[in-house]
Amino acid sequence: MKRFEHGGDSFGLPGVLDFSASLNPLGMPQSARKAYVGCIDACSSYPDPYCRDLTDAIAEAEKVAPNMVLPCAGATDAFMRICLALRPKRAMICAPSYVGYEQVLSQCGAAVTYAPLREEEGFAVGPSVADAVDDTVELLFVAHPNNPSGRCAQPEELETLLWRARRCGAIVVLDECFIDLTDCEDASKDLLEGYPNLIIVKALTKTYALAGLRVGYALCSDVPTLARLEEMGQPWAVSVPAQAVGVACLRDTSDYMDRSLTHIKVERERLEHALIEAGMNVIPSDANFLLWRAQTDLTSRLLEQGILVRSCANFVGLDERWHRSAVRRAQDNDVFIEALRKVAP
Amino acid sequence: MKRFEHGGDSFGLPGVLDFSASLNPLGMPQSARKAYVGCIDACSSYPDPYCRDLTDAIAEAEKVAPNMVLPCAGATDAFMRICLALRPKRAMICAPSYVGYEQVLSQCGAAVTYAPLREEEGFAVGPSVADAVDDTVELLFVAHPNNPSGRCAQPEELETLLWRARRCGAIVVLDECFIDLTDCEDASKDLLEGYPNLIIVKALTKTYALAGLRVGYALCSDVPTLARLEEMGQPWAVSVPAQAVGVACLRDTSDYMDRSLTHIKVERERLEHALIEAGMNVIPSDANFLLWRAQTDLTSRLLEQGILVRSCANFVGLDERWHRSAVRRAQDNDVFIEALRKVAP
Repeated sequence: MKRFEHGGDSFGLPGVLDFSASLNPLGMPQSARKAYVGCIDACSSYPDPYCRDLTDAIAEAEKVAPNMVLPCAGATDAFMRICLALRPKRAMICAPSYVGYEQVLSQCGAAVTYAPLREEEGFAVGPSVADAVDDTVELLFVAHPNNPSGRCAQPEELETLLWRARRCGAIVVLDECFIDLTDCEDASKDLLEGYPNLIIVKALTKTYALAGLRVGYALCSDVPTLARLEEMGQPWAVSVPAQAVGVACLRDTSDYMDRSLTHIKVERERLEHALIEAGMNVIPSDANFLLWRAQTDLTSRLLEQGILVRSCANFVGLDERWHRSAVRRAQDNDVFIEALRKVAP
Repeated sequence: MKRFEHGGDSFGLPGVLDFSASLNPLGMPQSARKAYVGCIDACSSYPDPYCRDLTDAIAEAEKVAPNMVLPCAGATDAFMRICLALRPKRAMICAPSYVGYEQVLSQCGAAVTYAPLREEEGFAVGPSVADAVDDTVELLFVAHPNNPSGRCAQPEELETLLWRARRCGAIVVLDECFIDLTDCEDASKDLLEGYPNLIIVKALTKTYALAGLRVGYALCSDVPTLARLEEMGQPWAVSVPAQAVGVACLRDTSDYMDRSLTHIKVERERLEHALIEAGMNVIPSDANFLLWRAQTDLTSRLLEQGILVRSCANFVGLDERWHRSAVRRAQDNDVFIEALRKVAP
C-alpha cells in the first residue's frame, strides 16, 4: 500500500460500490445541478480570481465577516497554502487522522510528530493533544470530527487546545470538512475572534457531494495570515463551476440538509448495529462514516463481494484490522450489510 | 499595481471587453460543451486521481508515450509541482515573460535571476538566454511562444539552450500553453527523448477556451522527475469536468482547430495593421495576442472606451508604455480598433 493512499479511487474497479469515500449519500442538491449547467458559457473565460460571490455566500452561511473568508480549490488547496505560507519546520498531527496532512507537510519539507488520540475517547480530540503541544510545534492539524473515527470533540477540549497552542506560538488548523454532516454543535467558528491562531478549513466536497469539483475555504480572524494564504494560492484556483455550484449550495433553501442529516443518522445506526452483530468493534461516530476493527484485514474479502472500504493500515496509530466505511443510500447499505455477513467469521 | 497581477480579471468591470486574457476567440468547441454537461452525475464522486482517460488522450494527441504525461490542474499547478519537487535555490526566468513564473518561484522561496530577451528579436528565445545559463541555475522557465510577445523561437535556439542547460545541470520548463494557437512548427516534443532535463508544460485553457476549468499537463521523458511531480500534486487535482472536457477536446475531430488558426491569423493581421496605423510599435506575433508600445500608458484611456488590455508595466524588461492585447472575434476587434483610434494621439 502506498504511504499516502486515500479512499475514493474505484476507477479500476467497475461495478464495485465505493464505501471508501464518505460523501453526502443524497448526492448533490438540485440547486447545484442547475448552477453547474447554468455556468457553461462562463467556463470559456477565467474564473473570478477573487471569488467575490463565493466569498459573500460563505460569509453569509458561516455568519462571519467576508474578510475572514478565503475560498480555495478544496481543503487540500487550503492545507497546501497554509504550509507554503507558514513554512513550518516542525508540525504535529493527531494520530490517527487524515493521511493528507502528512502528505502536504511532507511536500513542504516539514518534520512531523504525532499527538496520540485514545481509542476509549473514540479517537476524538481530548486532553492528550493539548498535552503534546510544546514550544517546538509551529503548526497542528486537527480533524474535527476526527477522520477516520467520525467523533467530534467537546467544545471545551478544542478551546483548551487553542489556548495551549496560542501560548506555544502554534497555529491550529481545524479541518471541519465533515462537521456539517454531523449532529454536533458547530461551535468552533465562535472561537475565531478570540484565537487568531485558529484556521478552520472546510470543503463543500462532502457536505454537498461535490467531490468531482474542487471547492472549499479557510476561515481565520487574523487578516495578515489570511492574506498570506491568498498569496500562496494559484491565480484562478477555484474553477468557474466550483464557484457557481458552491454559491448555489450555500444559498440552497430547500430541505436538502435536513433530509441529509436525518438519512445519515438513521442509516448510520443501522450500519453500526450490523457491524456490531457481525462481531466488529465499532467506534461510535457523529458523522457519515464509521471506523471499526475486525479480527483481520477484511478489505480483500469485502472487495470480492463488490464492496470497497477504506483500509486503515496506513493510518498512524491504527493497523490493518481497522476499516472505515461510509454511510450511503439505504439500498447500497443493504448490499454492504449482506456482504459483511458473508465475510464475517 | 500588484507585483503579480495578471490579465483576465474583468469581474469588477461589467460591460468591458476583455482583451487582457488571450483565449481561443472561437470559444470552446461543441464537443467540450457536450462533455461538460454529460459528466454532471460524475461530479458527485471523486475524480479519477490518476486521470487515466485524460493521460491516454494527451499521449495520443501529443504522440508521446503515456508514461511521459502528467495531467495537472492547469499550467500553474504544473509549475508549482515542479518548484516543490526540485526546490531550486536559484532559478532563471527570461525577461520579459509571464509573471506567474516569478510568483510560483517566490511562493517556493527560490531566488530569481533574469535572462534578457531582445526587442529586435521580438523577445523570442535567442542566444542571449543560453549565454546567461551557468552552473548556479537549477531551473529555467521559458515561454514558447514568448508571452507577452507571442513570438516563437527557432527550433535550433531551443536545442542550444537545452544542451547548455543540461551541461549546467539545469532543468528547463518550456511553457507551451500558446503553441497550438500559433503557426509555428511544434517541434519541442521531439527534444523530450534526448533531453531528460526538458519539461514541457501545456494547458488546454487557451487552445480550447477552457479558462474556467483548470486543466493542463506536463511532458517529460525522465520518469523519476515525472513521478516526483505526481507526488507533489494534490490528490484529485484535476476535477471531473476538467478531465471529461479535456478528453473531448483532445479527441475532437471537427474542423475547430483549423477554423481557429485561420481566424487568429486573419484577425491578428488586421489588429496589427490597425495598431501600426495608430502609431504603435508592434512586435510581430505568431500567437493569438500582440505586444505593442505606445508613447504612454493607454490602459486607462482604453478602459474608458470599454476595452481592457494588459498593461505590461509589471513585466521585468518592459514598462508602462507596453501593452498586450488578445485577438478576439471580428466584432470585438472592430470595437478595439475603434477605441484605439479614439485614444491614439
